[in-house]
Amino acid sequence: MNTTPQKYALGLDFGTLSVRASLVSLENGSEIGAAVSQYSHGVIERSLPDSKINLKTDSALQHPLDYLNSLREVVPKVMNETGVEKERVIGIGVDFTSCTMMPTSADGTPSCCNEKFKNDPNAWVKLWKHHAAQPEADTINSIGTAREEKFIEIYGGKYSSEWFFSKLLETVNDSPDLYDAADTFLEAGDWIVWQLTGKDVRSISAAGFKSMVVYPEGDGNWTYPSSDFFKALNPRIENVVKEKLTDSFSPLGSKAGELTKQMASDLGLAEGTPVAVANIDAHVAVPACKVSSPGKLVMIMGTSTCHLLVANQRHMVEGMCGVVEDGVLPGFWGYEAGQSGVGDSFAWFVENALPEIDDAECEGDSFGYLSRKASELKVGQSGLLALDWWNGNRSVLMDSDLSGLIVGLSMTTQPHEIFRALVESTAFGTRRIIEAFTSQGVAIDEIIACGGLAKKNPFLMQVYADVTGRPIKIASSEQTCALGSAMYGALAAGHFGSIEEAANKMAHLDADAFTPIQKNHEIYETLYQEYLKLHDFFGRHQESPMKFLKNLRRKMSHN
Amino acid sequence: MNTTPQKYALGLDFGTLSVRASLVSLENGSEIGAAVSQYSHGVIERSLPDSKINLKTDSALQHPLDYLNSLREVVPKVMNETGVEKERVIGIGVDFTSCTMMPTSADGTPSCCNEKFKNDPNAWVKLWKHHAAQPEADTINSIGTAREEKFIEIYGGKYSSEWFFSKLLETVNDSPDLYDAADTFLEAGDWIVWQLTGKDVRSISAAGFKSMVVYPEGDGNWTYPSSDFFKALNPRIENVVKEKLTDSFSPLGSKAGELTKQMASDLGLAEGTPVAVANIDAHVAVPACKVSSPGKLVMIMGTSTCHLLVANQRHMVEGMCGVVEDGVLPGFWGYEAGQSGVGDSFAWFVENALPEIDDAECEGDSFGYLSRKASELKVGQSGLLALDWWNGNRSVLMDSDLSGLIVGLSMTTQPHEIFRALVESTAFGTRRIIEAFTSQGVAIDEIIACGGLAKKNPFLMQVYADVTGRPIKIASSEQTCALGSAMYGALAAGHFGSIEEAANKMAHLDADAFTPIQKNHEIYETLYQEYLKLHDFFGRHQESPMKFLKNLRRKMSHN
Repeated sequence: MNTTPQKYALGLDFGTLSVRASLVSLENGSEIGAAVSQYSHGVIERSLPDSKINLKTDSALQHPLDYLNSLREVVPKVMNETGVEKERVIGIGVDFTSCTMMPTSADGTPSCCNEKFKNDPNAWVKLWKHHAAQPEADTINSIGTAREEKFIEIYGGKYSSEWFFSKLLETVNDSPDLYDAADTFLEAGDWIVWQLTGKDVRSISAAGFKSMVVYPEGDGNWTYPSSDFFKALNPRIENVVKEKLTDSFSPLGSKAGELTKQMASDLGLAEGTPVAVANIDAHVAVPACKVSSPGKLVMIMGTSTCHLLVANQRHMVEGMCGVVEDGVLPGFWGYEAGQSGVGDSFAWFVENALPEIDDAECEGDSFGYLSRKASELKVGQSGLLALDWWNGNRSVLMDSDLSGLIVGLSMTTQPHEIFRALVESTAFGTRRIIEAFTSQGVAIDEIIACGGLAKKNPFLMQVYADVTGRPIKIASSEQTCALGSAMYGALAAGHFGSIEEAANKMAHLDADAFTPIQKNHEIYETLYQEYLKLHDFFGRHQESPMKFLKNLRRKMSHN
Repeated sequence: MNTTPQKYALGLDFGTLSVRASLVSLENGSEIGAAVSQYSHGVIERSLPDSKINLKTDSALQHPLDYLNSLREVVPKVMNETGVEKERVIGIGVDFTSCTMMPTSADGTPSCCNEKFKNDPNAWVKLWKHHAAQPEADTINSIGTAREEKFIEIYGGKYSSEWFFSKLLETVNDSPDLYDAADTFLEAGDWIVWQLTGKDVRSISAAGFKSMVVYPEGDGNWTYPSSDFFKALNPRIENVVKEKLTDSFSPLGSKAGELTKQMASDLGLAEGTPVAVANIDAHVAVPACKVSSPGKLVMIMGTSTCHLLVANQRHMVEGMCGVVEDGVLPGFWGYEAGQSGVGDSFAWFVENALPEIDDAECEGDSFGYLSRKASELKVGQSGLLALDWWNGNRSVLMDSDLSGLIVGLSMTTQPHEIFRALVESTAFGTRRIIEAFTSQGVAIDEIIACGGLAKKNPFLMQVYADVTGRPIKIASSEQTCALGSAMYGALAAGHFGSIEEAANKMAHLDADAFTPIQKNHEIYETLYQEYLKLHDFFGRHQESPMKFLKNLRRKMSHN
């Protein structure tokens, strides 16, 4: 009997705290081995390593060498444990948090590894959740809006403090010498690909979603805003594109280069193995959810939720995080939206607002206990309603000054009722995002969910089905990001002709979907109208009590 | 050396769960002895004693014989323990929760003691917090408003389900035979005075505050609404006043009668001891707070807060609970307002929303721990704001369908921050009540607080001073109700010429008052404006999400 030898792709998933290496079968997408390594310095929030340099409030930095050290740990570990011959690993894909960016010299040396700049916080990697550049984001928004820059519209009306030029402008403003000395600024995902291949190849995905790179319809050239715009932000960056960036980008699924001899040796892989261009961690989950065409909303549900969708046209949708041609899947306009506090706010509740539970009832699993008790409630029975803005609102209001709210509290309110209201509030938030899309002509026919929450909490997923009134399918993989990266690695190696082909072969959905229960959906229809009242009263006005409270809080915390 | 022999008065304070007998010196108001007895049947909420008769939702009944049994326990105990000669107890005062009402025969036998009616819930005492008569209250309000009945205005726009005719109408509607058989309906406080003296003497206080008895300006006769009004409620009660009530009332501080031989023997007191007319428990605290003139707001602060005030004129103030001439202090118009959830909602928080605290930090005293931590916060630092409506709003919106709200929640919100927001919300509620009075020309120059919360929590009182911008004095007595009743007992006995004289002698205030801290008050000024925005948005509209949620909750709980 003749059997074709099995082949594999390697997915490298760089998260906020660790990297996961996942070795995946090209036959069926199953993960035959995986290893995870925490970054030594984690998230740097208070002071720089080996120094007493204190950081600004809301700083979140990382050490770039942590990524490489962890990489050199996980890949050999997976190869050893699985015993797979290195030649059988035919491609490598990389996904990374974004916008996580850094300055380097022309040879890719991070500025923080330069003795001269190691004590400057701006020389380090600025992690996606570095929020210290809010003043710079405010400047970008006011100037961008006044000049009617295209990117403002593309980003649903606002550019985020998390994104590339907010962070870069912070560097220019705080550390002009460092800015001058750096040869380039880039996404950490692109930097990893550079380290693997020796080639500085930039992915279109983060460029389009975070770096203002716009594809004007009918034109055909990816372009940054004009030098006039950058000059208006700060004269020093008038020519930032020419001097520090590149306007050449590679599409998703293309090959960035091949594994260098040195890196192949370090990792225990074959020299010359194809490496795909970098991708954004949430985005790469889309094909791993078996989605390769329009109309299917992918929800990556964890501490926060990321909503991804592709369409054949570009539409301007209020408060989305971006719309980029080829940015999510090759050949389509990709849309991203999100909710910034989902699992996060449930964890907040358990840590900060849940009384001690009898161990016999809880068995060490607060979420299981709460979900069980909450699932026994009828819709509307608690009399509670919440706004899911513990971390601000990412879509559709895109306002980090908004905050969480609970209404309907009474002397008989119990903890599992509050928990249910929080779960429902995140489902209402998702429904509001869906309606932002559909009201602008971006169709959503199906919902596919992945991530920790989706896999582990059937109660939560049933609430989402009931609130949205749509069936929700669940991705089979527990590691859709790593799987997605492996799929792009295989695509870059030419093993598949398209990402759709890879998805058909390697991605799977659970047989059981969550179907809306009609009588619940009908009551949620009415509750959702009340959610919208709160949403608009608190979210759409400058005189919102939330704005006042956040400003006062800021003021009193600094006093 | 000649010394006048010491004399005493006995205060009998009938609360929700127990009665307190307090023997008080007429020289200085000090309590020389006290005893407390819990009512055997407590609050009857589920089923009638010795039966399987289930009660309606929101029922709260009591057994009238419990009052007498507890009375026969506490008075002899106090007399024995103090060793005071019974002749030295020169007067007795009684206060009772209100409206706590009951049907009896002509000789004062409670209907529930009649074999024929003992299985009818309407034959029992309906405690103040019996809320099953809300449909009857709704009827009274719609008919009363349509007919422009004076009492509607007197009660600030709404008649409560807790009050006399809501409860009586429930009896007529549910048990017409019982209604027909009963000779009279009366407040439990009046019934106790009847048991002590053998005389059925009705106090003007509860009649004015709970029973629609109105003193029309310029006329001079206390009057009930017309028989036409009662006929409109239910033809059977067209002549309720003539058939079942009396329109003769005795003023506060007057003598209802003298202790009967039998009761004197049961209690170990002297036959013929003067007994004052009954008073409402919160109201009797007013002179015990040394208040005997206009402009001084008394706050009785416990599970709920009762606000009492007298003035020389009658003004119509939005959402107050009533304004009655001679109803709080003889010679003045008495005003009552209130907040239905204060200590109650703090207790809710500790039981339902407070995570386990390290014992070393908490030392078994959650409130002490929370108050200490909360007091370290700067005003506005938490970014939180709450509406204090866990039990609905009593004043100024008088709407039990309103509910609690917290806004400003974030991932960094901690339990003691929420606790502080709850405390502040009750202070804002008090300030809103103060402004309802002052905006209608009812002056408030001074605030005096008494009750458990006022005596035990300096952090809370400082917040109230800072929010209201007024100094707050604290009554020295820990038992202002019992003290106040003793004062009225002494007044009824003729020992004092006026309640003012009694207050000057027997009531004391703590030397230290809480004084507003100016910089806190200034920030609270701005926060209070935000509180008002929420107050009006959620409290003043039929389309309030709170109304929707309460209705849905009611519907889903019954499904």
